[in-house]
Amino acid sequence: MSNEEIFVATALGVWKSTYQRADKFFSSLSEVELQKQVAPGKNRLIYLLGHLTALHDRTFALLGFGERSHPELDAIFVTTPDQASELPSLDAVWAAWSDVNGRLNEAMAKLTVTDWLAKHTAVSDEDFAKEPLRNRFSILVTRTNHLSYHLGQVALVPK
Amino acid sequence: MSNEEIFVATALGVWKSTYQRADKFFSSLSEVELQKQVAPGKNRLIYLLGHLTALHDRTFALLGFGERSHPELDAIFVTTPDQASELPSLDAVWAAWSDVNGRLNEAMAKLTVTDWLAKHTAVSDEDFAKEPLRNRFSILVTRTNHLSYHLGQVALVPK
Repeated sequence: MSNEEIFVATALGVWKSTYQRADKFFSSLSEVELQKQVAPGKNRLIYLLGHLTALHDRTFALLGFGERSHPELDAIFVTTPDQASELPSLDAVWAAWSDVNGRLNEAMAKLTVTDWLAKHTAVSDEDFAKEPLRNRFSILVTRTNHLSYHLGQVALVPK
Repeated sequence: MSNEEIFVATALGVWKSTYQRADKFFSSLSEVELQKQVAPGKNRLIYLLGHLTALHDRTFALLGFGERSHPELDAIFVTTPDQASELPSLDAVWAAWSDVNGRLNEAMAKLTVTDWLAKHTAVSDEDFAKEPLRNRFSILVTRTNHLSYHLGQVALVPK
């Protein structure tokens, strides 16, 4: 591996292990357990599962992999708080989680070092010329941290 | 910047912004607020401040910067849960937080690309030859995620 490939493999490895922890955690919960809140008056686990699905779907587009597949999730899980909307069925949320993360992980695995250093889709060519850190790699690192942020919360729920 | 430097600068930038969020959050709290728990029966904020200080102090040694300065924190904030030990004074925890993070951030800023790809101190030369991802850069990425994990928890505390 080249030095550049080691940097990518290291960060991608942390993404993968963090994603696997989340997948394992949520998969272990019953429908009743998914209704629990992470703290009194705070988000329910099912809301966070949908929230992470929506954010990972946005990430797919942000990394330039094409159109996202579930934009309808944003109105329920991103732009409005928990308890404000009627949620989709649990089966529908699970299907979206599997679909979104499957597509995202598959596409990420194919990127080369040069691809990771290219700009993400929310920055213009002009701005990227001045700010080379607004690259796809930064999205990988920040999205991993976003996932860790919510993993810290879901870990608080009593078994 | 070389490609390698961009990878390092991107991950280091995420570390810095995550650290600054934590520092700003904890600095905004009164002594009474620091006694609040992140959820019923879970860690108090003051415990998490000490826990993060201890972990960042360990990170200093793990990155090969020298002896850690506050090993005594582990028995209170890492190997035993909250409420099991008498805590140091708030002034002492704050002094350790500032000292540890100041030294860590200063030392991190001096590392070259080659330094980041070198092994961390908890892996042997022999194992590192087989597993080049056990490098200092992996410590940077995982420690940033550890901080994000607890930031997600402290964000749950009602103001």
